[in-house]
Amino acid sequence: MQDTSKGKFITLEGGEGSGKSTVIAALEQWLQEDGFKVLKTREPGGIPIAEKIRSLVLDPEYSEMDARTEALLYAAARRQHLVERVFPALAEGAVVLCDRFVDSSLAYQGAARGLGIDEVAAVNEFAIEGRMPDLTLLLDVDPEEGIARIQRAEEREWNRLDNEAARFHTRVHEAYMTLAEKYPARIKKIDAEKPLEEVIKDCTEKVQAYLNVKS
Amino acid sequence: MQDTSKGKFITLEGGEGSGKSTVIAALEQWLQEDGFKVLKTREPGGIPIAEKIRSLVLDPEYSEMDARTEALLYAAARRQHLVERVFPALAEGAVVLCDRFVDSSLAYQGAARGLGIDEVAAVNEFAIEGRMPDLTLLLDVDPEEGIARIQRAEEREWNRLDNEAARFHTRVHEAYMTLAEKYPARIKKIDAEKPLEEVIKDCTEKVQAYLNVKS
Repeated sequence: MQDTSKGKFITLEGGEGSGKSTVIAALEQWLQEDGFKVLKTREPGGIPIAEKIRSLVLDPEYSEMDARTEALLYAAARRQHLVERVFPALAEGAVVLCDRFVDSSLAYQGAARGLGIDEVAAVNEFAIEGRMPDLTLLLDVDPEEGIARIQRAEEREWNRLDNEAARFHTRVHEAYMTLAEKYPARIKKIDAEKPLEEVIKDCTEKVQAYLNVKS
Repeated sequence: MQDTSKGKFITLEGGEGSGKSTVIAALEQWLQEDGFKVLKTREPGGIPIAEKIRSLVLDPEYSEMDARTEALLYAAARRQHLVERVFPALAEGAVVLCDRFVDSSLAYQGAARGLGIDEVAAVNEFAIEGRMPDLTLLLDVDPEEGIARIQRAEEREWNRLDNEAARFHTRVHEAYMTLAEKYPARIKKIDAEKPLEEVIKDCTEKVQAYLNVKS
């Protein structure tokens, strides 16, 4: 494994409708203007092997796919994306901004799907070879508010499926909160119910504080 | 997970040229004649998702595939094969004869490829949810003898690639021996350098002894 300690590995996490993609684009621009070499990415990120694996996971033909098979495939796609894109950038000293990473698997597969956080963590440990993010920004939105945002964007009423979705996203949210408590040095909670410019400002400050300490 | 304790889960392991497929066919016939419900299988075993995953691993287009990605994909294919074929057969009380299983991953990926036996075991533990084989027949052939057998079958001379193969298969062999020492109750070593009919007889006796105790 390459020496990836020179780079800065920052991940963005949060439920649906938490504004991750807007925030990450703003962070990228700000860091580039500040002279940092930046890689903005998300899995599978155009890496052919990882894309192929992900398309298998999402293929409706394979509706009988077991949840553990799925978790192993996500970990495999993660591994290849790391090896081909993230590790080389970190080895060159870049700031890597990654939209979702291990914490998403722990929250979605481990907690919400019920596979167990520790079990999913063990599989991911193998995939990432110990290279956890240096900093994780957790965009925290009340799960019902997150779904309501999506509904407003889609201009529709609350329906029965939204109830199910709300229960699912409540479990995801609880898992994220548990992770934030467990790794307070790495995971910084950001109140993402504030206006977007404030959310971006809060995220920028956290990244700034981290980079100051790091450099 | 279904109750798979009623069935008998028997795996065959061993290096190249150890005669696994002949032995397993003989065991299947003998067990069926004895009135057992038998499932003879091997991964990916025609399970569409598992076949698709395996074809990804073997696709020469993806030559840059990382060894850990590969190990995760093997574990994913294993999981789906278990869920769709092995677990249901075990739940019905069948004797399942499986040509290669977890020990192959530990020996080939963990030891010979250098990923670490414990690391590969952790990933597989997730895939198999604790359902280890009840009995494993390890067909033991000196690794050089194994390669020599293949050469004789292919009617060719020993070449430089065979030297490399011999080193690789020596590591596989050492790992198998380590596993046999670690799990003496489960893994039964069979001297597979004997004539084939004796190997089959030795294997049959081990299976008989196991089934007598079990039933």
